[in-house]
Amino acid sequence: SSYLQTSPRNINRSLSIRSNKNSDSVTSPTSSGRHRFIPSLRGSNPELSRRLAKLVKSENHVITAYENAGKEQQTIARQLSEWGEQTGDDAVSEVADKLGVLLAEMADQEDFYAQGLEESRTVLKQIRNTESSVQPSRDHKAKIQDEIQKLKYKEPASPKIVQLEQELVRAEAQSLVAEAQLTNITRQKLRQAYDLHLKALLERSAKQTLLATQARRVLALLDDTPIVPGETRPPFGQEHELRQILSDAEEELRGWQPGWEEL
Amino acid sequence: SSYLQTSPRNINRSLSIRSNKNSDSVTSPTSSGRHRFIPSLRGSNPELSRRLAKLVKSENHVITAYENAGKEQQTIARQLSEWGEQTGDDAVSEVADKLGVLLAEMADQEDFYAQGLEESRTVLKQIRNTESSVQPSRDHKAKIQDEIQKLKYKEPASPKIVQLEQELVRAEAQSLVAEAQLTNITRQKLRQAYDLHLKALLERSAKQTLLATQARRVLALLDDTPIVPGETRPPFGQEHELRQILSDAEEELRGWQPGWEEL
Repeated sequence: SSYLQTSPRNINRSLSIRSNKNSDSVTSPTSSGRHRFIPSLRGSNPELSRRLAKLVKSENHVITAYENAGKEQQTIARQLSEWGEQTGDDAVSEVADKLGVLLAEMADQEDFYAQGLEESRTVLKQIRNTESSVQPSRDHKAKIQDEIQKLKYKEPASPKIVQLEQELVRAEAQSLVAEAQLTNITRQKLRQAYDLHLKALLERSAKQTLLATQARRVLALLDDTPIVPGETRPPFGQEHELRQILSDAEEELRGWQPGWEEL
Repeated sequence: SSYLQTSPRNINRSLSIRSNKNSDSVTSPTSSGRHRFIPSLRGSNPELSRRLAKLVKSENHVITAYENAGKEQQTIARQLSEWGEQTGDDAVSEVADKLGVLLAEMADQEDFYAQGLEESRTVLKQIRNTESSVQPSRDHKAKIQDEIQKLKYKEPASPKIVQLEQELVRAEAQSLVAEAQLTNITRQKLRQAYDLHLKALLERSAKQTLLATQARRVLALLDDTPIVPGETRPPFGQEHELRQILSDAEEELRGWQPGWEEL
């Protein structure tokens, strides 16, 4: 359906991207006037790290897609150059070859981008791992609470209740530490992971802009004035200009510096 | 191996992208002092359109790769938002959701880029089709030339030679027209196809730069100061700033105009 879109869709019309719009009690904690801090997710999410584990897996598919795009574009760059040579038209041959050189550089940028996404993914895995490690501490605390409830109902006078309540205090202390670790890792690593992702995207964009602009200079050197049957095309004679364009592109790539500020 | 590269490779060291460097007689027609105009490719390339047909096929793989990347990134944008909601941390929830909205827009740009590549590919097919249609005219001319040579050797006095020579004159006239059509279509469509390709890349780069820059503003709103066990995070309270960022991104996308000049 996105093929039908001609202008960017109205972002404000989709202010949230969540598919489930009914869980207002969780999405808008402030609207209920109460600030929620790490409520128990037991029941609603038996395995805390399940969602992020799926995201990390999806991210791997994205990385593979960009690696494939890069690899295939390297092939095309070579095919274009070799096709140009076989046309026997020296202008087409030279232009296709130099265009191929620049297309291969653009393909490299897809690979570097995939590499940046992989770094970002590695950081997301640290959140996922912390989520996994916090789960047993939550389970342990909940299990003791359950046991106390059951005992209070079945054997209200049992001396085991006091013992379990002491155990619960220790479990709660451990849980407080685990939850603090979780929120600290989650926030730091979420920022870090997507900062890496976005910087990689900004770098790909900047370098491909530079390369595509030079590649259009190459195209402009191809005279496409039609000839009549029997007419001979003048010799190409712009090999020097082509070399200059490649040299300009190389210099711009080398001189590129990130223009962003740190978060 | 491209994972090991940390800086753009020296473009000038690879001034040509061709794998076969020995065919100097064809790549450097000017060095032999003679300008070549559409030399016969018979023998060396029995099917003129074979190389470009392969390139057009490879381009299809690239398009599929970008479509997959776009689709998978839409999924990730949703997964990120829903994961954020389940953390129960309102700041993470809000930031992940709005980041998801912007990531979905970036994913849309991959789809638009794939669409631009498809348009470019359609134009390349026109060169391929013209190459295919010129082949029979070349074959016809060559066949008559062969027959004349054979007859002159076997039956030098045959009256059929005169008849074949008249046929050859007609075939040559037809061939001149076909070759002029081929060079005209090749040059025009090569420029047009890669201009479409490069403009689509420039547009993706510009719009993703804009979206990634706004997405980093979203990240900056996530306070990642560590807390100690038992400490409560202050309420998020920056929902207004988040909405403003989405609104800015939308306005910038809508207001975007291509900055390039026509070839």
